Amino acid sequence: MTPEDVAVRTGAPAALRGRRGRGAVDVPDLVARARDGEARAVARLISLVEDASPLLRDVAAALAPHTGHAQVLGLTGAPGVGKSTTTTALVRALRAAGRRVGVLAVDPSSPFSGGALLGDRVRMQDHAGDPGVYIRSMASRGHLGGLAWATPQALRVLDAAGCDVVLVETVGVGQSELEIAALADTTLVLVAPGMGDGIQAAKAGILEVADLLVVNKADRDGADATVRDLRYAQSLGGRHTAPGAWRPPIVRTVAARDEGVDRVLAEVEAHRRWLSGSGEGARRRAERAAREIEAIALAGLRARIGEVRGSAALAALAGEVVAGGTDPYRAADRLLASL
Amino acid sequence: MTPEDVAVRTGAPAALRGRRGRGAVDVPDLVARARDGEARAVARLISLVEDASPLLRDVAAALAPHTGHAQVLGLTGAPGVGKSTTTTALVRALRAAGRRVGVLAVDPSSPFSGGALLGDRVRMQDHAGDPGVYIRSMASRGHLGGLAWATPQALRVLDAAGCDVVLVETVGVGQSELEIAALADTTLVLVAPGMGDGIQAAKAGILEVADLLVVNKADRDGADATVRDLRYAQSLGGRHTAPGAWRPPIVRTVAARDEGVDRVLAEVEAHRRWLSGSGEGARRRAERAAREIEAIALAGLRARIGEVRGSAALAALAGEVVAGGTDPYRAADRLLASL
Repeated sequence: MTPEDVAVRTGAPAALRGRRGRGAVDVPDLVARARDGEARAVARLISLVEDASPLLRDVAAALAPHTGHAQVLGLTGAPGVGKSTTTTALVRALRAAGRRVGVLAVDPSSPFSGGALLGDRVRMQDHAGDPGVYIRSMASRGHLGGLAWATPQALRVLDAAGCDVVLVETVGVGQSELEIAALADTTLVLVAPGMGDGIQAAKAGILEVADLLVVNKADRDGADATVRDLRYAQSLGGRHTAPGAWRPPIVRTVAARDEGVDRVLAEVEAHRRWLSGSGEGARRRAERAAREIEAIALAGLRARIGEVRGSAALAALAGEVVAGGTDPYRAADRLLASL
Repeated sequence: MTPEDVAVRTGAPAALRGRRGRGAVDVPDLVARARDGEARAVARLISLVEDASPLLRDVAAALAPHTGHAQVLGLTGAPGVGKSTTTTALVRALRAAGRRVGVLAVDPSSPFSGGALLGDRVRMQDHAGDPGVYIRSMASRGHLGGLAWATPQALRVLDAAGCDVVLVETVGVGQSELEIAALADTTLVLVAPGMGDGIQAAKAGILEVADLLVVNKADRDGADATVRDLRYAQSLGGRHTAPGAWRPPIVRTVAARDEGVDRVLAEVEAHRRWLSGSGEGARRRAERAAREIEAIALAGLRARIGEVRGSAALAALAGEVVAGGTDPYRAADRLLASL
């Protein structure tokens, strides 16, 4: 294993990864190697996607036939609730069950994103030599809408590379919890006692996106009150009160000691069965694909707007309009067709 | 002549014009009648253009072979400098010279735009029975970027209808003087004494767009100081100081008594010859056409962005992506092609 592999596995920022080769890229070969579990090939594919490389389309086309297998779990919650500790515990449990796992850390404060506490970093290093785990930070970029743009493509890479489960970790502030809910099959919202999280979460709409509520640090004072707050907030209504709807269970964990983690995975499995039986799973995946297509189409249109301005084709067409040979509408049609 | 014709000639708002027919429109016939000088046909064509009618493209195509003849004069200046009085005097002088004249009043405070002082309205009524004058307010609309969108199309209508000169009057505040300069072959900037206009105009950049500076109300105290201020501002530099450049002459007028108006027209003619000899006229017309094409192309792209969202084609393509039959990039290409 090269130093680059280790750095990539532990989510070091791009600048620390050393120079990537800039020679010709054999995309089908890269995809084949990623599917064989070669971490460096996976890293290279995600970088091509993140950097909006000219090969982006080749990569997407090569991945497509191999996608649709991975189960996507979203993890979100306020800073300090223990998202990365929970992620670490989930990875350990999933690996014990023989499953291949990918982690995409979109939270800029996550230890996987370079803002590391040494303890967490070392803990994740447990997995550094394990070819069944791939960990990647998506936080050092953030161009073109960040999560909305690059993360779905990175998910496709991990899916095609044979991950059974991909965990997407993002901080639960602002819009990101809505974005993660759009990406994930199952969204886990983490809260912790003594942060007033139950009612705050209800106010922030975070309960609306939760498929599973995890009260972490449940050995602390106030855990009962937090669970009670969440139950009360659920009783006030929401999408889970519709007939046949999934009612998000509330699970207590102490992720730092692996307590409750198996119960979380059991509820995730129950949710997976509900998604499958109710048709909601297919609906979510279709909506996710529709969002991706829409984002790409809109970016393409915006790029064309940039090309319109000051193009040589525009100058030539203007000359025709001045001469009366065509009108501005037909000229505009031809301009757009030429781009 | 019907009451509708008179109302249209004097620029009454659309609501006062009475119902326009909503039946089938024969665009080539309308254009033929406009070219025969029928005011009602001209009015109908401009309305089709202003309303962004589905026939807009047919109208533009039918007009194109007949355009490129009219000389476009822009008139701009702060409120109160006498723009409409000057317009009236210019129309009178141009008619006396046997020229067909169109007026597009884009200034919302213009008497031609419905914000009329009775005296001015009556004065323009001098021309109401004259088939060689067409007056139209563009101010009651203002959708889709206002001047930038509808005025160039209305100019094409008047050009195709055989106007030798089209006066475009707009208030000189904000961006409109830049827009009028982009539209016009020759831009007249009006100032008046005692308004501190010379220096103010220099500060506002209005001198940069002027091909001709008109000091109106030149019988008032302070006219000499205003001319001196303008000369001083010109001496500070600008595009007119380049070798071979046109140096904007300063003309004194008392438009309410028709004084100095022939001198203005003589300078406009001198500028026309300079435009022709220097190539600047062709450059301005090409730039005007390029701006029109660009505005239409951008509006078309923005409309497609609206169509992308929530379309049935998007849902179908999302299903294909979920099934692994295509990737989001190829799907986005097909989505855009289908719109």
